[in-house]
Amino acid sequence: MTDDETGRPIGKERWQIPGGHVPVDSTGPEPEMVSHDRLCLLNAGTEMAILEILLYYADGREAGPYPLTVAPRRVRHVRINDLIDPYAPPLGEDYGIVVESNEPIVVQFSRQDTTHAERATLSSIAYGE
Amino acid sequence: MTDDETGRPIGKERWQIPGGHVPVDSTGPEPEMVSHDRLCLLNAGTEMAILEILLYYADGREAGPYPLTVAPRRVRHVRINDLIDPYAPPLGEDYGIVVESNEPIVVQFSRQDTTHAERATLSSIAYGE
Amino acid sequence: MTDDETGRPIGKERWQIPGGHVPVDSTGPEPEMVSHDRLCLLNAGTEMAILEILLYYADGREAGPYPLTVAPRRVRHVRINDLIDPYAPPLGEDYGIVVESNEPIVVQFSRQDTTHAERATLSSIAYGE
Amino acid sequence: MTDDETGRPIGKERWQIPGGHVPVDSTGPEPEMVSHDRLCLLNAGTEMAILEILLYYADGREAGPYPLTVAPRRVRHVRINDLIDPYAPPLGEDYGIVVESNEPIVVQFSRQDTTHAERATLSSIAYGE
Repeated sequence: MTDDETGRPIGKERWQIPGGHVPVDSTGPEPEMVSHDRLCLLNAGTEMAILEILLYYADGREAGPYPLTVAPRRVRHVRINDLIDPYAPPLGEDYGIVVESNEPIVVQFSRQDTTHAERATLSSIAYGE
Repeated sequence: MTDDETGRPIGKERWQIPGGHVPVDSTGPEPEMVSHDRLCLLNAGTEMAILEILLYYADGREAGPYPLTVAPRRVRHVRINDLIDPYAPPLGEDYGIVVESNEPIVVQFSRQDTTHAERATLSSIAYGE
Repeated sequence: MTDDETGRPIGKERWQIPGGHVPVDSTGPEPEMVSHDRLCLLNAGTEMAILEILLYYADGREAGPYPLTVAPRRVRHVRINDLIDPYAPPLGEDYGIVVESNEPIVVQFSRQDTTHAERATLSSIAYGE
Repeated sequence: MTDDETGRPIGKERWQIPGGHVPVDSTGPEPEMVSHDRLCLLNAGTEMAILEILLYYADGREAGPYPLTVAPRRVRHVRINDLIDPYAPPLGEDYGIVVESNEPIVVQFSRQDTTHAERATLSSIAYGE
């Protein structure tokens, strides 16, 4: 179901999200209620997708590349807060995300902000090309 | 109004949403206030659209395919919680959605999270190609 | 600034939004806090854009077409609740939106839900082609 | 990592957002909790991006162009409220945004609404072409 009649796989290999910003404060129990930015990666194809995630900041610093794999016919949701190898990205700062994959995937970006007692959420399919 | 001058119908036949996750908890009366992920399917064409919805999880499990139809010139909103045939998808887990249609349609994804007393909502047009 | 070097205008002439649903209840003063779905229409070109808006429901009913114009180099935000000619669309029901324009425009969809004391909001660029 | 094998840079040079509207009221400490619309601009390329931002209103007024640069491999988040040169855009009014860049970039639009004690947030990748 994942390839069309021409055998063309679904998705793109390069994705970008300009609006990264992990809120510093959280309200409520860990890990469910921790404020976070989240990358949602869907590999509906038949080949392992090998990714690199790179974060760009406003002052010229970069974080990563963070290596990641998404197995065929699987989804993987990754909190930016949980990227720690080679090093943890700083919180509370503006950043943009570049995702590069060797296989076509689809990428969605979401934020959960629990600075206050109630959740605020947002989400958008990333820009792919 | 639904076809352009070349007779080309509006929409795509293959859509994906990587960011599925139905919140387990809800606050308030059923069914209005139940936490849910929702697929919104618009068939603005003149032919019946015959769909298959497939859910991919993080651990390699799949749910579906769930068969669905959208009549010509109609909209259909489907809560993921309400997909039960062939079996109900598990809640509280990360998943991605693949929608395949025999006719061009347009797909939007939304979430209502009522874990707390106030609603949190998000929405995005899905990735179509 | 609105046409590129080839003179090609920015935007699309056909847009769709599958996820329409105006919440029935509101909390707070009119008109600011009334629950609503909103179409945001940007005509950055140099010609008057003449639009027709059509609403499709789940049961086969249609509402409209609602005629609308957007002057050159202007934005126009329209609450679905305020479409009343030829007749007011029903609230509290699922619907999809088709926008047709004689000139390229860009369309964004937003919802404000004040069923409860706090606002819930969502937004997405519509699907254009 | 930012150019594909053909050397084609990632992104678009022309972006539009129809749904601008900065809420007039805010709750909580400045600057974090001030209601605002935000443009998130990602330049993942190797050349300085030189931008002009133009705001279109419902009554035919325009604000700007506001000049802006985004250095190579950097992100820049700009609150519409903070655009003051050549003059501050009016708050509490509907507007649309046109971003023109000499280099390919990616643009995301977000709103934080703190009219009430809790944040409401929304976000969407802009329309690029």
